[in-house]
Amino acid sequence: MTGRTDLAVELREEMTKTQEIKGVSLFTKTSKEQNIKETKIVIESEEGAKTMGKPVGNYITIESRELAQGDESYHEPMSHALTRHLRKLIGRSRNILVAGLGNEQVTPDALGPMVIQNLHITRHIKMEGLGTPDMVLSGIIPGVMAQTGMETQEILKGIIQVTKPQILLVIDALAARSQGRLNKTIQISDTGITPGSGVGNHRLAINQETMGIPVVAIGVPTVIAVPTIVEEAMQTMADALGKTGAREVIEKFSEEERYQLASEMVDPDLSQMFVTPKNIDEAIRRISFTISEAINQISVNIM
Amino acid sequence: MTGRTDLAVELREEMTKTQEIKGVSLFTKTSKEQNIKETKIVIESEEGAKTMGKPVGNYITIESRELAQGDESYHEPMSHALTRHLRKLIGRSRNILVAGLGNEQVTPDALGPMVIQNLHITRHIKMEGLGTPDMVLSGIIPGVMAQTGMETQEILKGIIQVTKPQILLVIDALAARSQGRLNKTIQISDTGITPGSGVGNHRLAINQETMGIPVVAIGVPTVIAVPTIVEEAMQTMADALGKTGAREVIEKFSEEERYQLASEMVDPDLSQMFVTPKNIDEAIRRISFTISEAINQISVNIM
Amino acid sequence: MTGRTDLAVELREEMTKTQEIKGVSLFTKTSKEQNIKETKIVIESEEGAKTMGKPVGNYITIESRELAQGDESYHEPMSHALTRHLRKLIGRSRNILVAGLGNEQVTPDALGPMVIQNLHITRHIKMEGLGTPDMVLSGIIPGVMAQTGMETQEILKGIIQVTKPQILLVIDALAARSQGRLNKTIQISDTGITPGSGVGNHRLAINQETMGIPVVAIGVPTVIAVPTIVEEAMQTMADALGKTGAREVIEKFSEEERYQLASEMVDPDLSQMFVTPKNIDEAIRRISFTISEAINQISVNIM
Amino acid sequence: MTGRTDLAVELREEMTKTQEIKGVSLFTKTSKEQNIKETKIVIESEEGAKTMGKPVGNYITIESRELAQGDESYHEPMSHALTRHLRKLIGRSRNILVAGLGNEQVTPDALGPMVIQNLHITRHIKMEGLGTPDMVLSGIIPGVMAQTGMETQEILKGIIQVTKPQILLVIDALAARSQGRLNKTIQISDTGITPGSGVGNHRLAINQETMGIPVVAIGVPTVIAVPTIVEEAMQTMADALGKTGAREVIEKFSEEERYQLASEMVDPDLSQMFVTPKNIDEAIRRISFTISEAINQISVNIM
Repeated sequence: MTGRTDLAVELREEMTKTQEIKGVSLFTKTSKEQNIKETKIVIESEEGAKTMGKPVGNYITIESRELAQGDESYHEPMSHALTRHLRKLIGRSRNILVAGLGNEQVTPDALGPMVIQNLHITRHIKMEGLGTPDMVLSGIIPGVMAQTGMETQEILKGIIQVTKPQILLVIDALAARSQGRLNKTIQISDTGITPGSGVGNHRLAINQETMGIPVVAIGVPTVIAVPTIVEEAMQTMADALGKTGAREVIEKFSEEERYQLASEMVDPDLSQMFVTPKNIDEAIRRISFTISEAINQISVNIM
Repeated sequence: MTGRTDLAVELREEMTKTQEIKGVSLFTKTSKEQNIKETKIVIESEEGAKTMGKPVGNYITIESRELAQGDESYHEPMSHALTRHLRKLIGRSRNILVAGLGNEQVTPDALGPMVIQNLHITRHIKMEGLGTPDMVLSGIIPGVMAQTGMETQEILKGIIQVTKPQILLVIDALAARSQGRLNKTIQISDTGITPGSGVGNHRLAINQETMGIPVVAIGVPTVIAVPTIVEEAMQTMADALGKTGAREVIEKFSEEERYQLASEMVDPDLSQMFVTPKNIDEAIRRISFTISEAINQISVNIM
Repeated sequence: MTGRTDLAVELREEMTKTQEIKGVSLFTKTSKEQNIKETKIVIESEEGAKTMGKPVGNYITIESRELAQGDESYHEPMSHALTRHLRKLIGRSRNILVAGLGNEQVTPDALGPMVIQNLHITRHIKMEGLGTPDMVLSGIIPGVMAQTGMETQEILKGIIQVTKPQILLVIDALAARSQGRLNKTIQISDTGITPGSGVGNHRLAINQETMGIPVVAIGVPTVIAVPTIVEEAMQTMADALGKTGAREVIEKFSEEERYQLASEMVDPDLSQMFVTPKNIDEAIRRISFTISEAINQISVNIM
Repeated sequence: MTGRTDLAVELREEMTKTQEIKGVSLFTKTSKEQNIKETKIVIESEEGAKTMGKPVGNYITIESRELAQGDESYHEPMSHALTRHLRKLIGRSRNILVAGLGNEQVTPDALGPMVIQNLHITRHIKMEGLGTPDMVLSGIIPGVMAQTGMETQEILKGIIQVTKPQILLVIDALAARSQGRLNKTIQISDTGITPGSGVGNHRLAINQETMGIPVVAIGVPTVIAVPTIVEEAMQTMADALGKTGAREVIEKFSEEERYQLASEMVDPDLSQMFVTPKNIDEAIRRISFTISEAINQISVNIM
């Protein structure tokens, strides 16, 4: 839950809008009846990866931004869209481990654990000879390092070595730039994740390279970083101060430098803080249910 | 959990430091061995109340700011200090209702409910003739309006009418200005509280006037309002921009105007958000235990 | 969660099956397609009340016993059936307080609190002038006496005096005699409830007389009392011992006496214990959701 | 949480009291001032193991049975005694993984997870170079098979392979025969555990052989099996029926046969049930705290 934004779609938006980015493709699809907008960003080359600051791979976003808060009608279409994308990414794998990352004691970070609690787990049914489920599903809530003393990567690596799933699905809470996306947007990617992403600490990454099996990551932005808030306020202030010369000063900075400046303006202790809505309990419960349902439906009935 | 700060001590700090404020007295006491600083602010007149934006009454703050995070050695001295102040405020009352306000599903707002869960409740022991406790203690977790559809004031008023305690103790999470005070500071006051304070909605206040019995409020700052963060960043930026003329522009504003300006710079939806530390789960658990212990000790052994 | 059974349908079953009971009518309805059996017991007179050991009134049971564990297909039809019965009992009342009784820290007793957490509460929307909902719904989790020091009756009475709902709906976990009914049966009655029922402590009853408004109780059996288990084993043993004369000894006792005997055979401390299934967490979550949905649907669309 | 009793001390008590058991030694120590009784049973040979139905090894029990319910004065001496025994069993190991077994959603099974939540975890501090703790402590809540689809053994084996602790400490809820021992007794053994013990399914055992490192198990009885309750009632009934001949019939059975008989008398579905006290929430919270404290103190200050 750190960094400016974990959403590829927001990173792309920040770049010049009309212009193409080399090595990065963008596809969008809007279903008006259902208020669902799907965006697929493909980072195709190392050059694109460098520009975007994210690894080569596919990043799909499912959103229903225009809906008013409390309108739950988007859950079913979003859940269906998520099932559809997961089926493609999972392919023929029929033995899936789902890991719900995050701290279940901290509301906006409890998304992953909450998803696990509503899954229809089946691996033990097969193992004990009590049935032959279409999909062998196992689930784990690994906890966070402050509570376990272990990297999530270490815990998952060990479990995968022993239980031998074909694919790993990780669910995690993300940071976004826009509060309009909080708890309403789902990002799916086939590049795995790095807890505390943006830091670039390769040792911690949870991806095909470190896990030995394909990794599909499902993330929902539930928080905004404090410097993001400050930076947006700075921009507003710069506009307001237009005539004083301060605007010119601010506009001289690049996007990157402005974020850096905002980070320096906030007390270092604030970097350990997050911004989240007051109704986060309800929002998290709903979106976690949307995701559980989508995973439960993967093998059930082909839509 | 709204407004700039719910702490009288921070309101006082914001005012010119050397100068006296008419109708407001300030006493401080520092115990070096125990790293505890106690501050008592007495708002003595309506004039002082207007200046401070808080009702006439006593506001005591117990802090141990200089301690590093994770150092738990302050809990026992803070708990003892809180017991001592509570005994004075409670006086001869021996029938106390403790209300733990807030949403137990949202970590930084769960302080009040968590305190109730660790109290040694005794009222039923007396009622059922199973003992004669020194202190008749009852407790309630009233929930929040989004979950109950009722004002906290309505729920408490009804319970007090039927169960007839002599005094009401309310525990609530507060907003602070300084992140250094989060989860480490306890404010005690004899003026009651207004959920969503600062709004001045008298209908909702929980105080002697509305409850019919004295109300002692115990609060701990667990969040910072988003505009507070922005305002502090603005101040830092103004200093940095010193030579451009923007500084003069910013400094022309009063404290009040700056907060207003910061509020306008953040998206209105952000006003429904809060800033809280990542380790809020542990921090809340510890400070709630400090408060429960202090209440449990009121009648036990006079220190 | 005490006593032999809180289900009128089980009390009725224990009585001679073919024979009519004076002052007690019985109606059943089975919907084969949906595997739902509905039973209505009307206790019409004080004589019937004395025979049954329950107050005069209507007791409706909705069951789907034949379903295998884990088959969730009954939830929708049960929820619809519950909505239908609730509409009849609620009549023209449009201002409802729902109270979720029980201890949310003890899994089989957490039914009531869990129902409240999934309700669509609306009273505050009307109060704040933000809308005109068809149904004014408020909710409260009063807690249990060991945690509050107050009788549930006192808390609800106070809240009703201040917030003035037209009808009170109480949700509670019950004890059953048959483990086949646990977490699969819903009882609705218009007679209210007495927490720790069977004890006949009128002071504690939550009913129209004590609350001043009609009370509809929704209960689900989640536990079995220890003496019930022992009594059933005794019966099995008596059958097995048929030839030794012990059978005659046991069969001389009335149903009532056998329960009494079983109670005496178990250690008194065991009377503070309960028997519950190992998968109680999932079972409670599902049935609580069935009930929340039914209440949420009361005003939504007439079926 | 199955089987008659998981406590070696109760198995030993059931055997003829005066007589020695070959291959099994018994030592007791009572500290009157502190109301603590410690019992050490050493199963020395395969013959002893067969008689006791438990593997060769040491089984230590710390009890304070005579204390009235709610008297918390035993926690500190019990915690100290536990620390003392753990130090001996752990020896020179300074890298410990603690696993809190059980289902945190089911109150009497949540003991293990609750212990983990209060540990002072240090492994990450060393790993990140932020300090050199005396004891490298890591912790995991592996969940239960119905939620994960994986054996606890598989999860722990994988984590141990990757994180390489020197010793594994497992915490679990147990079944007892006597309700007087529930939530007041701690058993420590160096033989590991088998979840669903008594079943003898070697594949599932968590011990030195399967984990590759020494395993110390800490268990607290929190439930009683249903057949245990029935058996005790049968014994009481047999005594009461003394003159009818039924007593002779019952007394002809061995202890083993009586339990078998009791098991057959209860409905098979009841074998998936457990008996637990109503105040289990408080009891579990307290004893879990006693255990966390004991583990936290292992390296802190040698008593």
